[in-house]
Amino acid sequence: MATPASSTAAQLDEALFTFLLRMGDNTLVLGHRVSEWCGHAPVLEEDIALANTALDLIGQTQMWLGLAADVEGQGRSADDLAMLRDVWDFRNLLLVEQPNGDFGQTIMRQYLFDQFHLLLLRALQDSADDRIAGIAAKAVKEVGYHVERSAETVIGLGDGTEESHGRMQAALDWLSPYVGEMFVSDEIDAEMATRGIVPDPASLRAPYDAALAEVLAKATLSRHEGDFAHQGGKTGFRHSEHLGHMLTQMQWLQRAYPGAAW
Amino acid sequence: MATPASSTAAQLDEALFTFLLRMGDNTLVLGHRVSEWCGHAPVLEEDIALANTALDLIGQTQMWLGLAADVEGQGRSADDLAMLRDVWDFRNLLLVEQPNGDFGQTIMRQYLFDQFHLLLLRALQDSADDRIAGIAAKAVKEVGYHVERSAETVIGLGDGTEESHGRMQAALDWLSPYVGEMFVSDEIDAEMATRGIVPDPASLRAPYDAALAEVLAKATLSRHEGDFAHQGGKTGFRHSEHLGHMLTQMQWLQRAYPGAAW
Repeated sequence: MATPASSTAAQLDEALFTFLLRMGDNTLVLGHRVSEWCGHAPVLEEDIALANTALDLIGQTQMWLGLAADVEGQGRSADDLAMLRDVWDFRNLLLVEQPNGDFGQTIMRQYLFDQFHLLLLRALQDSADDRIAGIAAKAVKEVGYHVERSAETVIGLGDGTEESHGRMQAALDWLSPYVGEMFVSDEIDAEMATRGIVPDPASLRAPYDAALAEVLAKATLSRHEGDFAHQGGKTGFRHSEHLGHMLTQMQWLQRAYPGAAW
Repeated sequence: MATPASSTAAQLDEALFTFLLRMGDNTLVLGHRVSEWCGHAPVLEEDIALANTALDLIGQTQMWLGLAADVEGQGRSADDLAMLRDVWDFRNLLLVEQPNGDFGQTIMRQYLFDQFHLLLLRALQDSADDRIAGIAAKAVKEVGYHVERSAETVIGLGDGTEESHGRMQAALDWLSPYVGEMFVSDEIDAEMATRGIVPDPASLRAPYDAALAEVLAKATLSRHEGDFAHQGGKTGFRHSEHLGHMLTQMQWLQRAYPGAAW
């Protein structure tokens, strides 16, 4: 469904549409993953905090995918894009579709994404596209809070007990190969950068690495340096097995009861 | 969808239809559960054995739900009944929808069901309904092999190492409250028994308990006696949370791509 009919293909701003899917799919998939914790977090305050984070991300999804649907101009809504695309049409980073694992892995995944998300949204506030700048200005406030919270928790658990330190180091080791994809630029990114709409993701790598180094030092965690990066999420070329399983649950209601509303 | 239009309700043999759903849903849900092991079992031979068991059960489902669809006479197929009903229309025992757990729990669930299944199918060979007697005659051969294999494995693991014994006892303790539902008779069962189509399930309890006692003694496992029985599966009144999650995955393809065939 993501491929427009050939008669309208010439009119579709495909680079912009794809960029918006990438933004909205990141927040949708991570938002759903975080929502899976609802009722299961280790303490009440964390349960509520995670639920709030999930709600923020789903709210941002509504804005990004809503704009994507407008740009596409095929009459689809944000809900249609969220609930009726199959796995190969998703454009989120592989990082955000990884399973929750334990609480430490969830928080590490959150921090690794939040730090990137914050840098990206800050830059997007100056986008040449006013609609994007507007969404970024709203989202950046929420994400500023997300990264503050996830960084603090990474530090608290990393520099905590032997058990919590070990789990956070294991989470970092597991998730590190998914970090690189955030900074890989492709032709979509190049076109968006040229048009002044989006910064080149590669330009965010240095400030990201600097911020991470500071947080990880406080957390007494060590990041294995290396160039290896799992890829295929933002291009949709090769998602992990986890995304499809997630979609069976996330999309169940609209798949079983098409058009259901309340 | 399971409720027929009122104009045809008078013609529907509802007791027979419900009985057939119970048979087919038991084998469908257990078959799907067992298929979840495919590629994950502890040794190759067990992996293949579990896959074969799953295939047998799905094959039996085709026969039971195929006949149910014929009896209903609304133009639905066995596939429609399997893939397009929601959780409240399923009539399987709660036992078979319980999660796989570890290998021991899967094998214990299998044995507890197989032993009941064998006794029921043996009796159904004498059903006043030739179609049912015919299906039972085919299925009983497969199920004779299932129970032989699951009983042997329960004995081997129960009377095995301290670790395997402990796991099998835990599995039995966990699953025991789901045994009673197999022998609870309701008005559907009463009508089927009166018509000579199906034995009263309560009549199978004594031979079941005797067979179980023998196998569990060899397995050095002890069954806590008690009358408590989780109920609500065969009536559809109250399935466990697990069934809905299972359906999201089992039915995904037909829900996302209605009518897809190959």
